[in-house]
Amino acid sequence: MFIPTTYTDDTFSISVKKARYVAIQGTQFNTYVTLKLQNVKSTTVTVKGPTPCWEQDFLFETNDISLGLLVEVWNKGVIWDRALGYHYLPLTSVAYNEQESGGRWIELEAQLMMRGGAVVGTTGPTGHSLLLDCRFEPPFGKLLALN
Amino acid sequence: MFIPTTYTDDTFSISVKKARYVAIQGTQFNTYVTLKLQNVKSTTVTVKGPTPCWEQDFLFETNDISLGLLVEVWNKGVIWDRALGYHYLPLTSVAYNEQESGGRWIELEAQLMMRGGAVVGTTGPTGHSLLLDCRFEPPFGKLLALN
Repeated sequence: MFIPTTYTDDTFSISVKKARYVAIQGTQFNTYVTLKLQNVKSTTVTVKGPTPCWEQDFLFETNDISLGLLVEVWNKGVIWDRALGYHYLPLTSVAYNEQESGGRWIELEAQLMMRGGAVVGTTGPTGHSLLLDCRFEPPFGKLLALN
Repeated sequence: MFIPTTYTDDTFSISVKKARYVAIQGTQFNTYVTLKLQNVKSTTVTVKGPTPCWEQDFLFETNDISLGLLVEVWNKGVIWDRALGYHYLPLTSVAYNEQESGGRWIELEAQLMMRGGAVVGTTGPTGHSLLLDCRFEPPFGKLLALN
């Protein structure tokens, strides 16, 4: 899907699996997920219903472990899309792993917490949750170069 | 496009007209604009080239004049989209106007400025600019109700 061009950065892999919404109106939801890291973002397709399933994988490279990934879930409208919740994932919390696991359910929160111009977390439970699988890929390139 | 259902809120109208990009690689740009107000957003179509033309109109209602509209310009990629620039428009700076005007060129900047968890402005010139026409629509509903 994305071929790394250098081996100086770490490859971060994130799989957006599915969500569970609590609201009664969740049956009418039509939602998608955006992933943002600094000034780049990517977006899943839009899926209907209270338990949408995306199973979409994203890869990116970074050499700055102090960053975090901002995950946003949006309900698509005819003109306006409405944010259902946010989750902030510090890259320091992500482990190296050769293979995908089953993922982990994370809670979506209503608001971003900022410090010094940057997102540092989220607050305010929404009851909605999202199943993500995040990992850093082991640096095969570096190992191969040593052999 | 959007029929107001109450007359307690003001109707804010924004027309996203066109952009001019300075970078040499602008010829390969494929860009779209997002408009965000609190937890709602809307997005233009994606248009190719260094001087894209959208001419898309958006309407929304608000009763909180202390808010601001965050305008983001994104360059669409195969997997990742990259932010080209931002502009923050405080609603207090928007006048009442019955008709659309020719609009106003605004400068896009590289970074958001935050205070207390909210965007308050932008900083860092990019050289890119965007032609917008923003206005509050006069409250015809209220006037009619008085007649």
